[in-house]
Amino acid sequence: MSTSAPPAGGPRFPGNGLHPLARALNASVRFDRRLWREDIQGSLAHAAELRAQGLLTAADHDAICAGLAAIADDIAAGRFDWDEALEDVHMNIEARLTERVGEAGRRLHTGRSRNDQVATDLRLWVMAAADRCRAALAGLRTALVERAAETVEVLLPGYTHLQRAQPVRLALHLMAYYEMFTRDDARLADARGRAAVMPLGSAALAGTGFPYDRARVAAALGFTRPSANALDAVSDRDFAVEAIAAAALGMTHLSRLGEELVLWSTAEFGFVELDPAWTTGSSIMPQKRNPDVCELLRGKAGRVTGDLVALLTVLKGLPLAYNKDLQEDKEPVFDALDTLHDCAAAAEGIVRTARFQETRLRAALDDGGGYPTATELADYLVERGVPFRDAYASAAEVVRRCRDTGRRLDELSAAELAAADARFGPDVAARLTPEAAVERRRALGGTSRAQVQAQILAAREALAAFPIDQKHRQKESK
Amino acid sequence: MSTSAPPAGGPRFPGNGLHPLARALNASVRFDRRLWREDIQGSLAHAAELRAQGLLTAADHDAICAGLAAIADDIAAGRFDWDEALEDVHMNIEARLTERVGEAGRRLHTGRSRNDQVATDLRLWVMAAADRCRAALAGLRTALVERAAETVEVLLPGYTHLQRAQPVRLALHLMAYYEMFTRDDARLADARGRAAVMPLGSAALAGTGFPYDRARVAAALGFTRPSANALDAVSDRDFAVEAIAAAALGMTHLSRLGEELVLWSTAEFGFVELDPAWTTGSSIMPQKRNPDVCELLRGKAGRVTGDLVALLTVLKGLPLAYNKDLQEDKEPVFDALDTLHDCAAAAEGIVRTARFQETRLRAALDDGGGYPTATELADYLVERGVPFRDAYASAAEVVRRCRDTGRRLDELSAAELAAADARFGPDVAARLTPEAAVERRRALGGTSRAQVQAQILAAREALAAFPIDQKHRQKESK
Amino acid sequence: MSTSAPPAGGPRFPGNGLHPLARALNASVRFDRRLWREDIQGSLAHAAELRAQGLLTAADHDAICAGLAAIADDIAAGRFDWDEALEDVHMNIEARLTERVGEAGRRLHTGRSRNDQVATDLRLWVMAAADRCRAALAGLRTALVERAAETVEVLLPGYTHLQRAQPVRLALHLMAYYEMFTRDDARLADARGRAAVMPLGSAALAGTGFPYDRARVAAALGFTRPSANALDAVSDRDFAVEAIAAAALGMTHLSRLGEELVLWSTAEFGFVELDPAWTTGSSIMPQKRNPDVCELLRGKAGRVTGDLVALLTVLKGLPLAYNKDLQEDKEPVFDALDTLHDCAAAAEGIVRTARFQETRLRAALDDGGGYPTATELADYLVERGVPFRDAYASAAEVVRRCRDTGRRLDELSAAELAAADARFGPDVAARLTPEAAVERRRALGGTSRAQVQAQILAAREALAAFPIDQKHRQKESK
Amino acid sequence: MSTSAPPAGGPRFPGNGLHPLARALNASVRFDRRLWREDIQGSLAHAAELRAQGLLTAADHDAICAGLAAIADDIAAGRFDWDEALEDVHMNIEARLTERVGEAGRRLHTGRSRNDQVATDLRLWVMAAADRCRAALAGLRTALVERAAETVEVLLPGYTHLQRAQPVRLALHLMAYYEMFTRDDARLADARGRAAVMPLGSAALAGTGFPYDRARVAAALGFTRPSANALDAVSDRDFAVEAIAAAALGMTHLSRLGEELVLWSTAEFGFVELDPAWTTGSSIMPQKRNPDVCELLRGKAGRVTGDLVALLTVLKGLPLAYNKDLQEDKEPVFDALDTLHDCAAAAEGIVRTARFQETRLRAALDDGGGYPTATELADYLVERGVPFRDAYASAAEVVRRCRDTGRRLDELSAAELAAADARFGPDVAARLTPEAAVERRRALGGTSRAQVQAQILAAREALAAFPIDQKHRQKESK
Repeated sequence: MSTSAPPAGGPRFPGNGLHPLARALNASVRFDRRLWREDIQGSLAHAAELRAQGLLTAADHDAICAGLAAIADDIAAGRFDWDEALEDVHMNIEARLTERVGEAGRRLHTGRSRNDQVATDLRLWVMAAADRCRAALAGLRTALVERAAETVEVLLPGYTHLQRAQPVRLALHLMAYYEMFTRDDARLADARGRAAVMPLGSAALAGTGFPYDRARVAAALGFTRPSANALDAVSDRDFAVEAIAAAALGMTHLSRLGEELVLWSTAEFGFVELDPAWTTGSSIMPQKRNPDVCELLRGKAGRVTGDLVALLTVLKGLPLAYNKDLQEDKEPVFDALDTLHDCAAAAEGIVRTARFQETRLRAALDDGGGYPTATELADYLVERGVPFRDAYASAAEVVRRCRDTGRRLDELSAAELAAADARFGPDVAARLTPEAAVERRRALGGTSRAQVQAQILAAREALAAFPIDQKHRQKESK
Repeated sequence: MSTSAPPAGGPRFPGNGLHPLARALNASVRFDRRLWREDIQGSLAHAAELRAQGLLTAADHDAICAGLAAIADDIAAGRFDWDEALEDVHMNIEARLTERVGEAGRRLHTGRSRNDQVATDLRLWVMAAADRCRAALAGLRTALVERAAETVEVLLPGYTHLQRAQPVRLALHLMAYYEMFTRDDARLADARGRAAVMPLGSAALAGTGFPYDRARVAAALGFTRPSANALDAVSDRDFAVEAIAAAALGMTHLSRLGEELVLWSTAEFGFVELDPAWTTGSSIMPQKRNPDVCELLRGKAGRVTGDLVALLTVLKGLPLAYNKDLQEDKEPVFDALDTLHDCAAAAEGIVRTARFQETRLRAALDDGGGYPTATELADYLVERGVPFRDAYASAAEVVRRCRDTGRRLDELSAAELAAADARFGPDVAARLTPEAAVERRRALGGTSRAQVQAQILAAREALAAFPIDQKHRQKESK
Repeated sequence: MSTSAPPAGGPRFPGNGLHPLARALNASVRFDRRLWREDIQGSLAHAAELRAQGLLTAADHDAICAGLAAIADDIAAGRFDWDEALEDVHMNIEARLTERVGEAGRRLHTGRSRNDQVATDLRLWVMAAADRCRAALAGLRTALVERAAETVEVLLPGYTHLQRAQPVRLALHLMAYYEMFTRDDARLADARGRAAVMPLGSAALAGTGFPYDRARVAAALGFTRPSANALDAVSDRDFAVEAIAAAALGMTHLSRLGEELVLWSTAEFGFVELDPAWTTGSSIMPQKRNPDVCELLRGKAGRVTGDLVALLTVLKGLPLAYNKDLQEDKEPVFDALDTLHDCAAAAEGIVRTARFQETRLRAALDDGGGYPTATELADYLVERGVPFRDAYASAAEVVRRCRDTGRRLDELSAAELAAADARFGPDVAARLTPEAAVERRRALGGTSRAQVQAQILAAREALAAFPIDQKHRQKESK
Repeated sequence: MSTSAPPAGGPRFPGNGLHPLARALNASVRFDRRLWREDIQGSLAHAAELRAQGLLTAADHDAICAGLAAIADDIAAGRFDWDEALEDVHMNIEARLTERVGEAGRRLHTGRSRNDQVATDLRLWVMAAADRCRAALAGLRTALVERAAETVEVLLPGYTHLQRAQPVRLALHLMAYYEMFTRDDARLADARGRAAVMPLGSAALAGTGFPYDRARVAAALGFTRPSANALDAVSDRDFAVEAIAAAALGMTHLSRLGEELVLWSTAEFGFVELDPAWTTGSSIMPQKRNPDVCELLRGKAGRVTGDLVALLTVLKGLPLAYNKDLQEDKEPVFDALDTLHDCAAAAEGIVRTARFQETRLRAALDDGGGYPTATELADYLVERGVPFRDAYASAAEVVRRCRDTGRRLDELSAAELAAADARFGPDVAARLTPEAAVERRRALGGTSRAQVQAQILAAREALAAFPIDQKHRQKESK
């Protein structure tokens, strides 16, 4: 938003009104109207409590409920005219309510302040958004597990430093991402848990002066408990920071997945062909298929790290209790959780439809360039009592001989191996196939078939028990 | 933007089309349509060059120019229907052009690519936005100088560690901010200078294959020169990072000004009364006047630091040349320069209308609590040959005596002073007034009247020579 | 670390050795030697497992244990000579072990890689550092509760927008910080929980090829469980990001406390006098007492937010599995947790020794400037059936009359109040004292005496149950 | 630094001394002693000015000069015993000076404060470090130009989206990095220019009270001018932010180069073989050569972005003038400029010694997988009057036919081409070689031989005129 400059050297702004630029900066309805559902939900619970305490008559209460319901319908139907002069979502809805129901509307703000109201709304939004993100991640985790189950028998080089290191199952590679997103799920669950604390009843900063059963209101709104301290309740944005931090780490994982899919779909790697539903063409090069969405998974990590920095910087050095700086909390938390949600959903689609190129994956293991089973040589000697460091040196000598003569490890004769280290017996050759190498890794988490299948089984069980209903996967209307 | 999840486990997306979620993530027209002016400007210059090279007939060229002019009118009038299916501002305009003028429109993309097109558009936008920000900062600098000129005779305590330290002129304090924003101006000018390099003619990455006088096109568009390397030209976003970095530092300065105005308008300081045009009330506390806009000057530093991190993170580790990650460049640079512009303009309004409370400022100097002229005691002794470190100890002894007896420095008798250090003569008392203390500081940049007036004079001369026309202060329509 | 440039245009670096600058960049022993305890702890557990699996003889195992114990003694006593040529803590210790015990040392690296070794070490360090931070925060939380218990009867203005808003108990203010640091404790506990997963047995990336009971090793080292996926285990640094994120938020809270203490110790506020143990003087102004440590609590939030950005940026876009970029994980996590620990401990000392200035606190309530009980006027009318929005207007009218005539709310006569709104009865005056205002706020979390005492009681119970032994408060030697 | 907790609930810290933890947090000598050269340089210039003004006798001045020279020798020789109790580099040197020369030492701090002293020292350091970085970047730029000059005839696919796009010269690719680092050089030069403003004479905040020719002192120290405003001079850290921002962008460029070298040295790309001087082995996989240093070039971008965030966050919301928070300025600026320097120097070594694999580069162009000359087909038609958008469609049709039949573009017969679009004549085949494609791109910055050679020539001229002496490439001792 860019607005006109104040008149240079002009007279003092007339009247008591805000300068137009002040109004524009101050108004948040442009973005906070997105909280309309939560605002109405909170107002309904607040009105019910005022009624229960005798602070509203039954008639006023009924009028308020009916008025808010009608407003909700209007907003959902796109018939609500948001007014920037009313500054924020709260005043827009309250003003409309009073237009509709008269004096009852003027009673609604009893015992609350925008300070506890906005904190309540935003917490409700974060709780729901965390659920939506968890559901989207569950979709992606499910896709990873399903693709892993299909590809247990597919081997490829595992990489460290982007150099071929040791053979692994493709399923192990896919399940590594399952692990990352499972941790993200846990962090979002923790963040949601700490968000589920209700500020309402804290009023401006000192607590409401009217009778108010905060535990009852909290339960009605789906909070775990009311907040313990009114000053803290209106100034605390930890829940937003924590949710953004979880999203930033989740996006970092998606950036890694995006990077690998970009790499794997190069002509040089050729490990995967992405579905045309997730790639695009070029405006001048007719032959191109570009992995745009994977690139965006990678690039969008930046915006969420930026969101995290933005809010932490806003909060740095703020005195108690509410300060207007806190208006800057909403855009980053909206952006962070939206981005995570959409990118997780896109990643699910990409993973589900990716066509792994088994021929190229196998060729990468067999072309010898990387000697990915060289470690087996060392381990073979260790099993025969050679100290690992010495065994490592003998294996390195074999590799050197291969490199010098342009051969693969399994092309050396038993005699040549024995020449490198006399302790190599004829049985060593059988150790050097990728299949043998992956099967030898039978410890928990390793790349043997049984271990990978056990990981898949455990993941399926975890997903079967996933607590969030699929309704959360629905789009939030905005 | 939050979109629906892909169908879980569903069939492969039919046809060659993009998945709706891919389309949503990929489409940038939601935010890049803001570049419509620059896009049309660039297309006109490109078409002129194609014409000059004989790649367009005069008729086609005329049709393109007329078509683009009509489109510009439509957009400016709000009659243009942006289509997300056309992905970005470039394809929206080109498609509409072809609708209007037929085949000529299909000739326009000759010899260019969206890669050089978007880089050109964004550079033009950054150049103009940098000018707008510089103009807004010039307004704020002017306000600071004018208020300084009015307040040369007003003294207040200068603070270090937020403790009263030494008396200064209010004008010196205001001019300190002038210095900060003057450096911001210089950084924006440098950033603009490095942005003024034209990518057009670089095509996708390797340079255009058609004859193209890039220097001529650059001059027509107001660039300093064409870029030197096609691969670099389409992948370089330094100009955006640099502009955001300049904005982040500018916003950091505004956060400092905001913090001080918040402090100074507390009941406790009472140094300034902000104009009602820049303050707001409370939803439940009828007595409140809150310095909301000053708080936002402070808080909005967070979002711009976040923008900077976002783009640096996007760029980290990107291979050459263009990658789709670069789509993430626009939102942060738009946000950063808009925020700086609007906050500088608001700060100008706030500074112009602030009512400094001279009584409170003076009282803060005179209530003795801070002993702000204690340094004079030490300097007095130094002038009489006492080593500074010893003089400092004697002055500290005087302060201790004042503190123990609850008196101000100038309430001690000559005898008492001499008791603390025999070298204090009767003339020391005259040194202890704030006026004497500020006048003693006559070195360049110090707080004496002559120095402060010299600073003001130099600033006025600099502003009189400010090169950017006031038309830049106009609002960019979006 | 700054090193000399390579010879310009010089010949290729001779031999197979690393270029000195490559060696300097690559070597991490300068900072990772801090992991020596964890490295030895991990090696002992690894050796025990090799022994259990028959991969080490009893004699070799004993030699390794004795050798590592002797090395630990040497390091603790400062007798260990770290060698940058050996690159990192792991190779330094292994090389020394082999010097000491010969061939047995060369057997230790069997079945593990530096990739799982360093991940294990760093997780152990983070687990212990999280405990240390939690203990330091518990100390600070205890201090806050104790000071709150002392100050239940002390009232001051609560602030919003740094304007006086409503009276609160000082204890409520202190307990707001208790709440923040309690959330930090919970986040650190969660982060520690997710860190407590053992990578050992994952070897380079594919799992160890030797028999290895990972659950047994995990239990021996105090981990909750072994990691589930070898590729993930060696490339995952989520635990470090999460710990830094928790620290960044904790430091943000400390920055708020620091800011308030700086403000409160100004001459203008005068709400607190900091103990000289936590303030310093000036090099030239003998009268100054500067709240340096509080300023550092505020400023050091910056470095930890920077640490968080650093590690997130490192991880962005990294392909699986281990990449050398991960060497950049240690310095930020060390710095973040050290900073949080030390600042929390300092804050405890500052809070314990702060002398709250009751006279000044009370004066801030009574000087009328802020009308902090104006909300009571509105609430009074609401209780008599007036809609809140109308009541608010009447209260605002009263404030206006006070402001115009320079009086406090409680200085208006009943007649004057009734003139503002006829519904004000003579009983309203009793509502306008700070004491009445705080006592009316009896909902959970409010500022009434009973509520504040309940908060204090609950906090004491939580602290009494705090699970981390005070030994964790001891300094880690480095 | 982690220190012991304060005694829980213990008695107030005895005496006037600082708490040990406060001392530890407050002391900066651990890192700021690195400024010793600049501190002594500044003190010598300050002493000369005091002498010129008659504030020091010739004897005192001589004693100070001799004392400082002796201290410099001691520090350079490692004989100086830094004392944390003296807090910082300034007090350490002044205290030692007074030990050595007695009373004259106690006169040195006349007319200055640590506030202007430290700002002067840090600016001098940043100026020198910027020169060192510029020199290191000049080395890297030279290496890039030299390698480009050698490889003008080597072609490879240029990439967008990491998909093969169009053929380019390897020299064009290398020169793209030259452009990036040339911009970094310009930014560092600008940052240095704005750093070259002298704070000395500003004293604590209000200017020195003694006669002081600041312009003379500035000239003696190599500054461009004295600062214009004393309050600003002691609180301004823009120069540090700006230098770190320039370094962060420079490191981002190095991260891109690092990423590409990692990619190019994979088995899959095989475009480059890095010199063993810049690669390392694996602790368990004997066949590995890992591009560790390139990975660090990539990863270390994170720490410098973190440094930038750290300092911006520190500065956010700070009131004037000096605050202790500013102590947090040094570590990030040291780290950022050291990192840039060392990584640029390493990159120079890597680039100089890289062995580009011409066979693999050529094969990547010829294997047809990417159809990198498909754009030529479209351009051919455009030259024959076909609108670009139609020509693009015809070219896409040709690509489709190749793809369906597994052939390269140049394997289609003239008849087959004509079948796709009748306007393709027999002369089109000559357009489809990589050589023809690169030579057609003759606009400025394009990939034709003449253009690339012109870029190289211009770069050589720029480097020949590079103003910083090679002495700046020397290591700063620390």
